[in-house]
Amino acid sequence: MFTGLNAFPLTPLAEDGIDEAAFTGLIERLAAAGVDAITALGSTGSYAYLTRTERARTAHLAVAAAGEVPVMVGIGALRTRHVLEAAEDAQRAGAAGVLLAPVSYQALTHDDVYGLYADVTAELSVPLAVYDNPGTTHFAFDDELYAAIAKLPGVASIKIPGVPADPGEARARIDRLRALLPDRVTLGVSGDACGAAGLAAGCDAWYSVIAGTLPQAALAIARPALAGDRAAAHAASERLAPLWEMFAAHGSLRPTAAIAEQLGLVARPCLPLPIRGLGEGERARLAGIVADLGLDG
Amino acid sequence: MFTGLNAFPLTPLAEDGIDEAAFTGLIERLAAAGVDAITALGSTGSYAYLTRTERARTAHLAVAAAGEVPVMVGIGALRTRHVLEAAEDAQRAGAAGVLLAPVSYQALTHDDVYGLYADVTAELSVPLAVYDNPGTTHFAFDDELYAAIAKLPGVASIKIPGVPADPGEARARIDRLRALLPDRVTLGVSGDACGAAGLAAGCDAWYSVIAGTLPQAALAIARPALAGDRAAAHAASERLAPLWEMFAAHGSLRPTAAIAEQLGLVARPCLPLPIRGLGEGERARLAGIVADLGLDG
Repeated sequence: MFTGLNAFPLTPLAEDGIDEAAFTGLIERLAAAGVDAITALGSTGSYAYLTRTERARTAHLAVAAAGEVPVMVGIGALRTRHVLEAAEDAQRAGAAGVLLAPVSYQALTHDDVYGLYADVTAELSVPLAVYDNPGTTHFAFDDELYAAIAKLPGVASIKIPGVPADPGEARARIDRLRALLPDRVTLGVSGDACGAAGLAAGCDAWYSVIAGTLPQAALAIARPALAGDRAAAHAASERLAPLWEMFAAHGSLRPTAAIAEQLGLVARPCLPLPIRGLGEGERARLAGIVADLGLDG
Repeated sequence: MFTGLNAFPLTPLAEDGIDEAAFTGLIERLAAAGVDAITALGSTGSYAYLTRTERARTAHLAVAAAGEVPVMVGIGALRTRHVLEAAEDAQRAGAAGVLLAPVSYQALTHDDVYGLYADVTAELSVPLAVYDNPGTTHFAFDDELYAAIAKLPGVASIKIPGVPADPGEARARIDRLRALLPDRVTLGVSGDACGAAGLAAGCDAWYSVIAGTLPQAALAIARPALAGDRAAAHAASERLAPLWEMFAAHGSLRPTAAIAEQLGLVARPCLPLPIRGLGEGERARLAGIVADLGLDG
């Protein structure tokens, strides 16, 4: 779960709650494709927008549909009490691990965030991945805080927001981080455009948005990368450059949702309002990219 | 409600929910002090951290304790559906108006935010204030979006995040905004250090954090400002400069909560975890400021 390709599916939303059939279909598709792990209720899974009941139900559906593939469940919330409730619900649903981002409304201090992880890990029976996603949490970790949190019991991985573009700098960055962390703590790269580069730089896992919707395209990058064939991984990632450009312009959520809608994996719209998704022009452009790359096959 | 001094109280939290007695005491204190309006469940009232049930109960308690003073209630949430639920609950509790910030986890587009206000105002029976608080929402309004939203039915005020420090620039800014907005839409300044300057520049209201905890100190600024005595308002605000410095360094929430705890208005701690509040050194410094300024009388 904390190594290899970990796929982050959407949680498709219907008018009155989760589109359970579509969500189950997404999970079964990932399990069939052979991803190494699935994370339900990541940022791509809109965890922050759902009620406790919806989150518990989503976690249950994911574990039920994933078969032998381990399922990690996102438990982030603004309030520690709600994080603990989500952790309880995720474990009851059978999650093999949990993912926790320091979601903020009021800006959090480093002490606040350390305290959050201390309070939550004290109550957990499954391992936890630290979710560093400054674009959504507006919290900036530093290496000292990574190191302090990594010492807490049950911390198994850190999901980092990317690696430097230069391969030498990326490798140096990962080496420096690894020296700060206990051996049991893996490093997982996110930001899909960085997947190949992160694995080449020595990350253990790729926490991938696109893998949740186009698992074959992500496996075409991850499998060679994990086998040490950096050139093949790099080429497979470069092939998807038009997608990465859409992600850079619009974030990963809206384009990914538009692809899933276009492929009929989920109904349109599938995102929670007020998020309106891509406009018609961008959808048409994206459909062209998907067709050109043969991602609709 | 959309003019004069509008006070934003804390929502004190106990181990197992709202500290109802303390919250009622805060509201009664504000009504007795003679503020022009009260906003329950603003950012200072930790709305983003509370459950639907806690928010509905808080709104009810505020209206019950405020007597003749009109109560505005914050209805922001990440998901439009939850905003609509909060609006329904606030109106059922007797709110005279609602306050809505475009809270984000995924970054919102201007279209998303316009759609949010359109969807919500279509369902409201009471007037709405637009809450522009980029420090917590991470959404940046521009004047074009202000103008578009201000045309929606029921929009009665815009809570702006401050005014330029230079009095001439502040006046020009407010004049420019006013020219863009229908006459029925008031402008309210926030950022307590800007209260006197905002009213002097022509704002109709001061949406004030400190007024929720130290109403007399805020009235000492607002009353002369609203009567056109800018010099007296400015002097009263300058007197509180040590407080404004604490707010600049730590945000307004943590120092305000520490003052309320120190004065015995609420139990300590009163903020929702993971927010740990000020450290001991800062609390001691703040207690000195409060004593020096005679704010504990």
